[in-house]
Amino acid sequence: MLVVMQASASEAEVAAVCEKIRQLGYQPHPMRGATRTAIGITGNLGPIETAPLETMPGVIECIPVTKPYKLVGREFKEEATVVRVGELAIGGRELAVIAGPCAVESREQALAIAAAVRAAGARLFRGGAYKPRTSPYSFQGLGGEGLKVLAEVRETFGLKIVTEAIDEESLELVAQYADVIQIGARNMQNYPLLKRAGRTRKPVLLKRGLSATLDEFLMAAEYILAEGNYDVILCERGVRTFADHTRYIVDLGVIPAVKRLSHLPILVDPSHGAGQREKVAPLARAAVAAGADGLLVEVHHQPEQALSDGHQSLFPAQFEQLMSELQQIAAVLGRTLLPALEAKGG
Amino acid sequence: MLVVMQASASEAEVAAVCEKIRQLGYQPHPMRGATRTAIGITGNLGPIETAPLETMPGVIECIPVTKPYKLVGREFKEEATVVRVGELAIGGRELAVIAGPCAVESREQALAIAAAVRAAGARLFRGGAYKPRTSPYSFQGLGGEGLKVLAEVRETFGLKIVTEAIDEESLELVAQYADVIQIGARNMQNYPLLKRAGRTRKPVLLKRGLSATLDEFLMAAEYILAEGNYDVILCERGVRTFADHTRYIVDLGVIPAVKRLSHLPILVDPSHGAGQREKVAPLARAAVAAGADGLLVEVHHQPEQALSDGHQSLFPAQFEQLMSELQQIAAVLGRTLLPALEAKGG
Amino acid sequence: MLVVMQASASEAEVAAVCEKIRQLGYQPHPMRGATRTAIGITGNLGPIETAPLETMPGVIECIPVTKPYKLVGREFKEEATVVRVGELAIGGRELAVIAGPCAVESREQALAIAAAVRAAGARLFRGGAYKPRTSPYSFQGLGGEGLKVLAEVRETFGLKIVTEAIDEESLELVAQYADVIQIGARNMQNYPLLKRAGRTRKPVLLKRGLSATLDEFLMAAEYILAEGNYDVILCERGVRTFADHTRYIVDLGVIPAVKRLSHLPILVDPSHGAGQREKVAPLARAAVAAGADGLLVEVHHQPEQALSDGHQSLFPAQFEQLMSELQQIAAVLGRTLLPALEAKGG
Amino acid sequence: MLVVMQASASEAEVAAVCEKIRQLGYQPHPMRGATRTAIGITGNLGPIETAPLETMPGVIECIPVTKPYKLVGREFKEEATVVRVGELAIGGRELAVIAGPCAVESREQALAIAAAVRAAGARLFRGGAYKPRTSPYSFQGLGGEGLKVLAEVRETFGLKIVTEAIDEESLELVAQYADVIQIGARNMQNYPLLKRAGRTRKPVLLKRGLSATLDEFLMAAEYILAEGNYDVILCERGVRTFADHTRYIVDLGVIPAVKRLSHLPILVDPSHGAGQREKVAPLARAAVAAGADGLLVEVHHQPEQALSDGHQSLFPAQFEQLMSELQQIAAVLGRTLLPALEAKGG
Repeated sequence: MLVVMQASASEAEVAAVCEKIRQLGYQPHPMRGATRTAIGITGNLGPIETAPLETMPGVIECIPVTKPYKLVGREFKEEATVVRVGELAIGGRELAVIAGPCAVESREQALAIAAAVRAAGARLFRGGAYKPRTSPYSFQGLGGEGLKVLAEVRETFGLKIVTEAIDEESLELVAQYADVIQIGARNMQNYPLLKRAGRTRKPVLLKRGLSATLDEFLMAAEYILAEGNYDVILCERGVRTFADHTRYIVDLGVIPAVKRLSHLPILVDPSHGAGQREKVAPLARAAVAAGADGLLVEVHHQPEQALSDGHQSLFPAQFEQLMSELQQIAAVLGRTLLPALEAKGG
Repeated sequence: MLVVMQASASEAEVAAVCEKIRQLGYQPHPMRGATRTAIGITGNLGPIETAPLETMPGVIECIPVTKPYKLVGREFKEEATVVRVGELAIGGRELAVIAGPCAVESREQALAIAAAVRAAGARLFRGGAYKPRTSPYSFQGLGGEGLKVLAEVRETFGLKIVTEAIDEESLELVAQYADVIQIGARNMQNYPLLKRAGRTRKPVLLKRGLSATLDEFLMAAEYILAEGNYDVILCERGVRTFADHTRYIVDLGVIPAVKRLSHLPILVDPSHGAGQREKVAPLARAAVAAGADGLLVEVHHQPEQALSDGHQSLFPAQFEQLMSELQQIAAVLGRTLLPALEAKGG
Repeated sequence: MLVVMQASASEAEVAAVCEKIRQLGYQPHPMRGATRTAIGITGNLGPIETAPLETMPGVIECIPVTKPYKLVGREFKEEATVVRVGELAIGGRELAVIAGPCAVESREQALAIAAAVRAAGARLFRGGAYKPRTSPYSFQGLGGEGLKVLAEVRETFGLKIVTEAIDEESLELVAQYADVIQIGARNMQNYPLLKRAGRTRKPVLLKRGLSATLDEFLMAAEYILAEGNYDVILCERGVRTFADHTRYIVDLGVIPAVKRLSHLPILVDPSHGAGQREKVAPLARAAVAAGADGLLVEVHHQPEQALSDGHQSLFPAQFEQLMSELQQIAAVLGRTLLPALEAKGG
Repeated sequence: MLVVMQASASEAEVAAVCEKIRQLGYQPHPMRGATRTAIGITGNLGPIETAPLETMPGVIECIPVTKPYKLVGREFKEEATVVRVGELAIGGRELAVIAGPCAVESREQALAIAAAVRAAGARLFRGGAYKPRTSPYSFQGLGGEGLKVLAEVRETFGLKIVTEAIDEESLELVAQYADVIQIGARNMQNYPLLKRAGRTRKPVLLKRGLSATLDEFLMAAEYILAEGNYDVILCERGVRTFADHTRYIVDLGVIPAVKRLSHLPILVDPSHGAGQREKVAPLARAAVAAGADGLLVEVHHQPEQALSDGHQSLFPAQFEQLMSELQQIAAVLGRTLLPALEAKGG
């Protein structure tokens, strides 16, 4: 259910409706748009009686929501959501390229790669401190030490930090250290984790599960919004199929599909989808051409020595070349990359 | 790496090898078979020098493990694992049928269904107290109250309890109340949860993920064994495909595949795979004919009123008929169902 | 559209309705059931005016067909179709096991295997004379020579012959030599071939495509029936997925799904689905337990020398053992295998 | 096996090697590159003795081919194949956009759409005269009449014609009327049809099957080349998965994968993959950004009245806008669209 307020409705009128919704035993989710405020209602199991709300001052109408998701839907909020990450905006005209290694392996490695991706124009840095690995015997990340390295990357280079949380404990720490909390594909339906991420005040980057339908993907985001955190960035990273020439098939058709159904921004991770370095740049260009709001790209200065996923990491020079191509393709769609930081130093 | 001991090796010799392995910085996993003891080694990142171990008393040889998984593999342990759940054994000649509702909805519901499935011959009872639901607005289970109801089912009917844990908090409680801890398909790669389940002393029923390869499935089990809990029961529950005539496709070919590669028992859940009542019994019969060690079946006395998955729950009379057919098919393979309890009462 | 006739309707009344349908520009498909005759109408692009038909003598009512398929649907014909192959019946109480090599490689090979499968109780023999192979450089079958060998197998052993046609030319020959024309999975949507098969008077065994939905599978059969050949036997042979522990996943849930929607019999080919000998028997047993009307099984006396698919062929002794198990499982479902022929010779 | 000739080898030396290969019982496939001529050998079942060939004048070496495919592989021919369609070249620097309706429905329809796509810059026209339809009761195309309409389109507008053949009979006619013979996805493994297409002298556009692996796709092309027709254009059109927000998932990662393994050009059909008009342009732009050699796009002037696939056809104005965007994206990759024809008339 969605309560649509008049454009001229006052703050007090909006607040009164929210209070009434609470009295009825539900949760109100007011969201201000450019032309109107709408208040989503969650917490009801069946239909809601509309009369008590429709008759309140400032209310235009109560409209039912036809999709299983509510808060993430375009019905609920027509304008595209722009997620603020400090001074940066994700989901607007500017495309966000988040670059860095699969995992933080050492202070030296992270700083070297951060310098390279910043020089190429990236404004956000990725790197896993907690790694969900298929084998219990594989490198599982540096944990808290990795988070400290990421904090140093931010201080040194002015890059925003995106890193993954894999459980309650790591979520607490990641929420402290990072600018964006990543929820990985394997945890897309880890609902307790989504709820906890929804209770933080940090933006959440939610990766699509390996075989998640679009409805399931949006419902997973709904779990986060339902807890009051509206700053969710979706991320397509490839789906599992019979095909074996790439690790997964990157599903770029999901971009216009998301744009139609949801107001949330959507990025693409071509690195995990491709699984091979040579296929990353073509898919990255394609993602921008298809309308993605940005990318998540693995870059490593010494990929042959990487502790994980080295074969899918771009060399810094390849990444620089890619950034130039992306800038040009973005222009075709009337967009641009987030402005690069000035050269460091000197 | 696997250290194979002589059949005649003494307890002290096995203990000495384990101690040596610890000194080298690894974890030993001794497993006694009918004809030999083998000691698995985990915790190494690269190859292990074999000389210090091969020269110890009682050691026959050190053999490398060729699969990514170790402890779950037939290389590590030739005999089939039989998991003890109280006086019951899962993975031996007797087939285990775990039956009950999708979710515990009330004391009355659980007791009524428990009476029915016990009467039909089931020895284990399933019912979710914590439900991972696609929508944050769907019924999420009774939580702790549900666990208490399950405990009452055990006391009243002598049925073993199988129920799902979805996070650290629920795992603690489930480990207290249940006989078998279920890890659901959506959490098959929730590695922190698997590790915690590995630190409990209760058997774990691990469901295959919606698009998990067999290697990933076995590696998920490996996470549990690597923490020292060897009582893992695998469960096929259908994989996601393009097909739309059933909710998932139940992959019965995975049964002989698991039997070849692993010593762990494997059950099949035909209810979630089928998604429709009329297709449950054919798939249940098929699973037993294909060599499954048992089934997980949803039964509800009033499925049209169920809060979740009612359309895939069998009526008690259908379940009774199915149990009779399963008993006969099991006999063709030289097996039998776990013996039914005597009629309750009077 | 389906015209339902009264139980008491005379031959002449049925014929008059058919004639009327032809006059209206459509094709009538009369089908006599135990309790009523129904006449399917095809050839219309839009809705049909019912008044001219409903008022004719002997007509009860005209009912619209709600599925995209018509002639293959249960709406059109309630009773299960039993396809006659000489004195044998497929789709009734008796299960048909069609056994033999992947390809006819030589007269000696075919006769040796035919003797073995007959001895084990099979009544139908399979063997490809025309092989659709992924590589143009692989063995493509013996062609017409292979058909002559198959004819000799029939004469010598009294086995019915099932063999594949791959184009118009081979279809003509197969229709002459074989008892059942097989259309392979790769040709399931080769509509010109289906139409031509529909114009023969031989039963057609139609294999499901590698990624065909149930609707597509039934629509492919519809192409054959629409040409006037109602003797179609469906065959599940596994679908393509991400899984790699078997060649395909055999989808046994399709059996009850077909039984609900269609009156056509359905067999299962566990050999191509499994792709490995050791997994064939478990899937074969499972198929019968799930309600299949029979099986298509590869058997080879020297599989290590087979020109194609040797690794998935059963040894004769394994096949004999399997036949015994199938007989017992069939009995659980109130069915039996087609009666074996007496031992040959003497 | 590949016989590599010296750069300086004479025509006569190449001819002598080919003759020798024929004498050995195989087929030679000489292919001249910029820097060397290589001669592929097919027709062998096992290894070939190299000595008789390696010692001939002009031969550098004999190298084994490590892939299952031979003639389509980069091993066989390093330079990209450029397929000539009259004065046009597909596979070079210029991108080919083939546009038109799903099916030729009438002379008026085809001419109207042809005028529109020519005005927007397309140089090739698509339109089905023979339509493989899931239902036998759906519009199956105008057949020979449709081909005549297509011939008129070519004469009137100077557009090259691409249209599908579905069996031997239609192939003969299509080869007469069209400039490029299309083999549809459902026929990708219709090997008799591929062989016949290989015996024509017209370029063949081969669409990837709904669940074809890359190896199977290339092997299907190999069937055509093995018959002597080297002018094959591959076409990705989406693969079947569990996802339901588009009809298929368009697999753009296959473009760099094809480019690495094969010398053949590859186009993308975003219309069938998307299945919805609004998703066609994003995927079309993405395909060009990923490196495709062109596109196959459905355009209809009155899509709401189309007899098939109207909902996925672009309006002419949308197509014009798309062509402009494609031109700009092509430029980023150092490419361009085939030059538009001058405005017609006046």
